[in-house]
Amino acid sequence: MTDKNGIDIEKAAEFLDLPPSRFSGLLEKRTIIHNWDEYQNLFRFDSHVSGIEEGSVLIVKDDGFELIRGFPKIKRAMTLVPSIERNFSEAGSVIVEEKMNGYNVRVTEYMGELIALTRSGHVCPYSTERARHLLNHDFFEQHPELVIYGEMVGPDNPYVPKDIYGLESLDFFVFDIRHKTDGKPLPVMKRRELAGNYGFTQVKLFGEFDIQQASAEITEIIRELGKTEHEGVVIKDPEMVLQPIKYTCSEGNNADLRHAFRFYNDSGRDYMFPRVVREGFQSFEWNESEEELKQRCLRLGESILRPMIQSIREVENNERISEDVRIRVKDRDTIDRFRSYLERLGVDVVFSEPERVGDEYLVRINKVNQSTTDKTKSILEGQLWS
Amino acid sequence: MTDKNGIDIEKAAEFLDLPPSRFSGLLEKRTIIHNWDEYQNLFRFDSHVSGIEEGSVLIVKDDGFELIRGFPKIKRAMTLVPSIERNFSEAGSVIVEEKMNGYNVRVTEYMGELIALTRSGHVCPYSTERARHLLNHDFFEQHPELVIYGEMVGPDNPYVPKDIYGLESLDFFVFDIRHKTDGKPLPVMKRRELAGNYGFTQVKLFGEFDIQQASAEITEIIRELGKTEHEGVVIKDPEMVLQPIKYTCSEGNNADLRHAFRFYNDSGRDYMFPRVVREGFQSFEWNESEEELKQRCLRLGESILRPMIQSIREVENNERISEDVRIRVKDRDTIDRFRSYLERLGVDVVFSEPERVGDEYLVRINKVNQSTTDKTKSILEGQLWS
Repeated sequence: MTDKNGIDIEKAAEFLDLPPSRFSGLLEKRTIIHNWDEYQNLFRFDSHVSGIEEGSVLIVKDDGFELIRGFPKIKRAMTLVPSIERNFSEAGSVIVEEKMNGYNVRVTEYMGELIALTRSGHVCPYSTERARHLLNHDFFEQHPELVIYGEMVGPDNPYVPKDIYGLESLDFFVFDIRHKTDGKPLPVMKRRELAGNYGFTQVKLFGEFDIQQASAEITEIIRELGKTEHEGVVIKDPEMVLQPIKYTCSEGNNADLRHAFRFYNDSGRDYMFPRVVREGFQSFEWNESEEELKQRCLRLGESILRPMIQSIREVENNERISEDVRIRVKDRDTIDRFRSYLERLGVDVVFSEPERVGDEYLVRINKVNQSTTDKTKSILEGQLWS
Repeated sequence: MTDKNGIDIEKAAEFLDLPPSRFSGLLEKRTIIHNWDEYQNLFRFDSHVSGIEEGSVLIVKDDGFELIRGFPKIKRAMTLVPSIERNFSEAGSVIVEEKMNGYNVRVTEYMGELIALTRSGHVCPYSTERARHLLNHDFFEQHPELVIYGEMVGPDNPYVPKDIYGLESLDFFVFDIRHKTDGKPLPVMKRRELAGNYGFTQVKLFGEFDIQQASAEITEIIRELGKTEHEGVVIKDPEMVLQPIKYTCSEGNNADLRHAFRFYNDSGRDYMFPRVVREGFQSFEWNESEEELKQRCLRLGESILRPMIQSIREVENNERISEDVRIRVKDRDTIDRFRSYLERLGVDVVFSEPERVGDEYLVRINKVNQSTTDKTKSILEGQLWS
């Protein structure tokens, strides 16, 4: 029985270990969504379905199916010492790697070419082009059973542009390699060795630490990373059997808040609250002096109010609140495809004329934040806050 | 047709101008809730129902019905100048009264005695006893068609205790007088005169101002009120035809945040966000200097982090996060009734032994905040933040 999406319901359901009626119901409700563009054999999971993460992607092949598992949600330590003790005591030691501030991408082979899947399971045309240039294709031929999980980082980044890493354009930092379908990860050092063999860029390795020493070491690492507004670390069981934990710097946290409050009406309350709570627990655990606490309070208050006031001023001056980002591509065609992609996702964008830089094109993109612009405008016109 | 709650559905529905089936459906769904205690003839509106505010109370009398309308929601000015212009230009002038920081109570006569209804429409035994001692009963005999709306303020306050008003115990400040059933308010000066005639305490009157002068005057008032951490003002159409607007001080706003972040897991995200946004708009409208803005940022950050860190420290020391409040009653019986009332509402309380003060009893009440205590404890034990 073949569905209107061109998928054999019975076989796909069997592969996913779901009753066929359940699978067709999920297609019907658009919990599993058929990809819209040229990648006609992809189906993305819009939410968690019996053990399969949101953002997982089902690939229909001539000879069967593949499942590219989503990014596992990494839980956060609010206080480091007890969290490491409680969660890693079985492991004896932990490996600490950097958590970078960019956007998550999975790279896999699809009909002979690489594709880059975003966290939600879309094929991003820009990330796909970049991945094709950045990654050694041999890996995918020689390891067809594996998927690369990593972070796209740098200033030529249409989602989370960052200058703090000293990168010229955009690079892809591998942080995980997993098997297709069951999502089983490689042990950390094995993954680093394999990625190294193919010349992949990888997230920074800080080292392996005994459980007893880990908290003190990580605290030092976090203080150092904070100085350059880096985001933080991920703490991993070397075998990747126990779940990893993330822990972040106050400075990176505040940078996120600054960005969010520029667009306060969009990324408002749910974004803000956990970030603020983290600051309280870190200050407590670090047993900060009166002066250090005062500095942290000021930093928090400034991260919230300054960008917001800047946005209000811009609207007062009849500007629209927006963000300038850039992409850099080799193939001009990617520009149009990326624009269609963003428009399809409902992002309000203005693309500049491509500018030639070496053998590439640099395109500036203005992303308008209409919701915060409108809300601010209405308040400045005397609209009341209900 | 009489319902199991002892109400004549047909007649009550007719009084409320609802179809009888709708009315019995609302009773069924507990949108209209029969009062549980000795006030058997009261029905409270748990949410808005076709033009009748949440918290409104239907009173069944021998000879018919009365409706005590809920507190109308007062919208907030985020920026003063355009809000006054936009909302009061028809009025020509506005009257400014103080908005006090306490809890809202409506007082009406019920079967020959006064009762005090909270914002949600419960009969609070403590507020009821206080109202009976604080208010001249003649008013209710001579004006059976009117309801008194006001704020219970002072340190002997089990909900929002405040020392900032220089009160010894608790007082009731009238801010509105409205007709039963249609909820029509008296014009401001007429209400003040009437309340004055019966010796009622009233909220402070700052004056009547032309629309053109009002913003400047109110800004000055707000700066003054801020110095003593008072809450703010309500700006009213003298005739009470246009809707009133509230506008508040940064200092009072920060005091609210300090209180909220002591119990961060309860009053967290929805409470925090609008309070933070107000700070941004006020700083913008006041065109603050770099130094003023920095002070505001520090104040905001401290209001958030300091109380939270204090709570974490308490839990670390095996204390439960709680709040000490007091009540002061003339009748010992009120103590037990108030305890039952709080327990019925699900508040976790420990009452001290009553202490004789003059002809009254002072009772200290410890209100435990179990949710924030538990959340904090679990984090300190290494539970991860999902």
